Amino acid sequence: MWLKNLNAHYLLFGFLASVTIIADRLSNHMLKGTIILQVNLDRVINDIETLATFTATPGNGVTKSSYSHEDKLAKEYLKNEMEKIGLKVWQDEFSTLFGRREGKNPDAPVIMIGSHYDSVVNGGAFDGVAGVVAALEILRVFQENNIENDYPIEIIAMNAEEGETFGPGTGVSNSRALVGTLTEKELDTVKNRHGLTKREAMKAYGLVPDLAKAKREKGSIKNFIELHIEQGPVLDNHQIDVGLVEYLPGIGRYKVKFHGSLEDSTAPMASRKDAMVAASKFVLAVNQIVQSLGTGITGTVGEFEISPNSHQFVPDYVQASVEIRTFDKKILDEINLRDRFMTEIKSIQKETNVDIELIEMARIGYSNPTPPSVMSKENVEIMKRICDELHYKHTIINNGTGHDAMIMTDFAPTNLIYVPSKDGISHHPDEWTDYEDLKKGIDVMMHLVYEICK
Amino acid sequence: MWLKNLNAHYLLFGFLASVTIIADRLSNHMLKGTIILQVNLDRVINDIETLATFTATPGNGVTKSSYSHEDKLAKEYLKNEMEKIGLKVWQDEFSTLFGRREGKNPDAPVIMIGSHYDSVVNGGAFDGVAGVVAALEILRVFQENNIENDYPIEIIAMNAEEGETFGPGTGVSNSRALVGTLTEKELDTVKNRHGLTKREAMKAYGLVPDLAKAKREKGSIKNFIELHIEQGPVLDNHQIDVGLVEYLPGIGRYKVKFHGSLEDSTAPMASRKDAMVAASKFVLAVNQIVQSLGTGITGTVGEFEISPNSHQFVPDYVQASVEIRTFDKKILDEINLRDRFMTEIKSIQKETNVDIELIEMARIGYSNPTPPSVMSKENVEIMKRICDELHYKHTIINNGTGHDAMIMTDFAPTNLIYVPSKDGISHHPDEWTDYEDLKKGIDVMMHLVYEICK
Repeated sequence: MWLKNLNAHYLLFGFLASVTIIADRLSNHMLKGTIILQVNLDRVINDIETLATFTATPGNGVTKSSYSHEDKLAKEYLKNEMEKIGLKVWQDEFSTLFGRREGKNPDAPVIMIGSHYDSVVNGGAFDGVAGVVAALEILRVFQENNIENDYPIEIIAMNAEEGETFGPGTGVSNSRALVGTLTEKELDTVKNRHGLTKREAMKAYGLVPDLAKAKREKGSIKNFIELHIEQGPVLDNHQIDVGLVEYLPGIGRYKVKFHGSLEDSTAPMASRKDAMVAASKFVLAVNQIVQSLGTGITGTVGEFEISPNSHQFVPDYVQASVEIRTFDKKILDEINLRDRFMTEIKSIQKETNVDIELIEMARIGYSNPTPPSVMSKENVEIMKRICDELHYKHTIINNGTGHDAMIMTDFAPTNLIYVPSKDGISHHPDEWTDYEDLKKGIDVMMHLVYEICK
Repeated sequence: MWLKNLNAHYLLFGFLASVTIIADRLSNHMLKGTIILQVNLDRVINDIETLATFTATPGNGVTKSSYSHEDKLAKEYLKNEMEKIGLKVWQDEFSTLFGRREGKNPDAPVIMIGSHYDSVVNGGAFDGVAGVVAALEILRVFQENNIENDYPIEIIAMNAEEGETFGPGTGVSNSRALVGTLTEKELDTVKNRHGLTKREAMKAYGLVPDLAKAKREKGSIKNFIELHIEQGPVLDNHQIDVGLVEYLPGIGRYKVKFHGSLEDSTAPMASRKDAMVAASKFVLAVNQIVQSLGTGITGTVGEFEISPNSHQFVPDYVQASVEIRTFDKKILDEINLRDRFMTEIKSIQKETNVDIELIEMARIGYSNPTPPSVMSKENVEIMKRICDELHYKHTIINNGTGHDAMIMTDFAPTNLIYVPSKDGISHHPDEWTDYEDLKKGIDVMMHLVYEICK
């Protein structure tokens, strides 16, 4: 019955006649009874597949490193596609590409939609790119439907999200530049696999970075909305169409090094410096401390490196990895986790005669752990309703780290929408999202933008 | 001055004139003022180097597996060398080679000296072989010095000591057959790398094993004496010539498997089944239990296998290896370690919701842990005196496992003499013992045999 109604709408809205209708690739939705917005999946597929050809490793996944030749080719393609639909296109002083659809109120804060198009080495075609293409397709649909947006809408296409390129803690660069937390120092210290610093790599790319100019004013962004592949198996395993993120947990990382003494298993118990005993005490201490802090935080020791890791020897060295996750913005104001760990470490050191080092794995300029990145709850509620109206199966999913959306949450009301990753695979040539699934994600995002742009 | 005296002795004992004297390879010792016994290091070197040529991996260490072609070649060489000095030579029903120098009292219990000549794959030239060659050289010296022994002396040359060949717990076969603890079942179950059971491999070697016939009567062996390379770094590091073993600690081995649930680091603490937390509790429990039992026992958890061993996940699986060592024969009668572990395991299981399995790694027919293997203290005292008289630096060293001497301790008064292993390396082509060091070990063993054979 619903389909019949939609056919009736086709007749009403003559301006849709020019769109080639392929039955299994197009779907039609009426939301709030005012308009039909249609994603053209052929265009989306063409975007994804074209962008995948800009790779340094043809036949072995997508390799589109920041500031590379392939980055330039992709940027040129996106620029052309944006210009085709009348957007004002420019690259900012950190080489972030923008395409702006002006609003009825040009001075109003902007609704920013998009993601990144750089990839890891031998990555897939969807990580990041899916979100850039979603944003592009949304403004195409707005263009062909003559949508009148009060707020300006900007596509953001970022080229330096992957932390792999310049090493851990160096990713989500464009969003960090945008909110003003990326430092000059970082530009001159971290290096890519060709030995170039960020600044050098950007210069070779044809741009002298200017962090002051690339920074946006707080309040100038009304919303930041990103669609991304899940990079995990939850949606795919449960055959859920769309994942709505309420928050990304904050993260804290420590390495704890236990330096004992190597001895044969016959060594007297009393004089041992047993790194495994010390590490075990620490595992239990972390567990006990974190449990005592309630449900706003978790702590995991999931990894040991043990030397020599032989049944015959008292280990002289254990390195434990501690991962803290936070779900409550307030919890980190109330506790000093490092102090609590140090108190335990001192006591374990006394009991075991094992020397213990606590190493913070924090990114420079960030607290360790970081607070959670909380998304716009209001928009999550709108998207739930949109999903229900579109009959899309949806779920709240609060997994994932390191997305640009995470950087944006303290700067502007932000939302992150996940589409399924086949078998949870990403950063791999086999990374895959069914196009129908991608379309559903774009549908939800598009109707959210439609609702909030007025 | 001492050297001058020795030269005088040369003149006295005319039967030594035929021996080629190479100054840096021969030494002369007067013990108890009655005789000069001289190890001929050239013969020893020739034995070691010849036996090293019987290898399945020329150019890549010695590979002389039990019941192999190389085993046969080595046995033939040893048989010939024994016959040259008038020994009665035979192979028993478990393929152990013996060479007997009759005693004045042929019915007296035998002094058995020797070791094994089989090797691991890509092993060295000294492990085992050093002890067989020591025994051979001792009876050569006895022969050329016309020593009259009251007790018969038998060289034992074993060909199935290495547990590697048929898998863990299957080594020290010849000594186990000799004392009657090797089972028919073992002959038909364990397999070598060619897929043959022990019985099949022995048949292919040309012998139908007969365990009943291979067994010796208790009381028929007056002493068992083995020289072996240390296979550890203690003597080499401290530049000590000879290691005298007072006991080999008993050994107990367990694997403890912790089956939890794999979860992301964001999983609520309260509902986790964290295998690492459970394993950590167990490490501390082992440590506490063993410490409470005093100095006669040690316990070590030196090895973890963790899955997935990632900082991002609550591990669903940890396997811990527990090694118990015992130094006191009585301690195992007083405690039931398994019961104590199980009590802790049940309580940890309750606290953590992790399923825990305790697996005994005992050899069939053995207690777990085993009691220590205590050597003849009397003979250790004699050897200390001999070392002092020879000006050899010596130490008590109670490390090592899995030697045939260990099997013999409950059957006959037994002694084990270590010579240095360069850098502690063994079971490797680089395994090395300086020949001068080997000579010192043979000297000590030879003079012990000389004293107790009367």
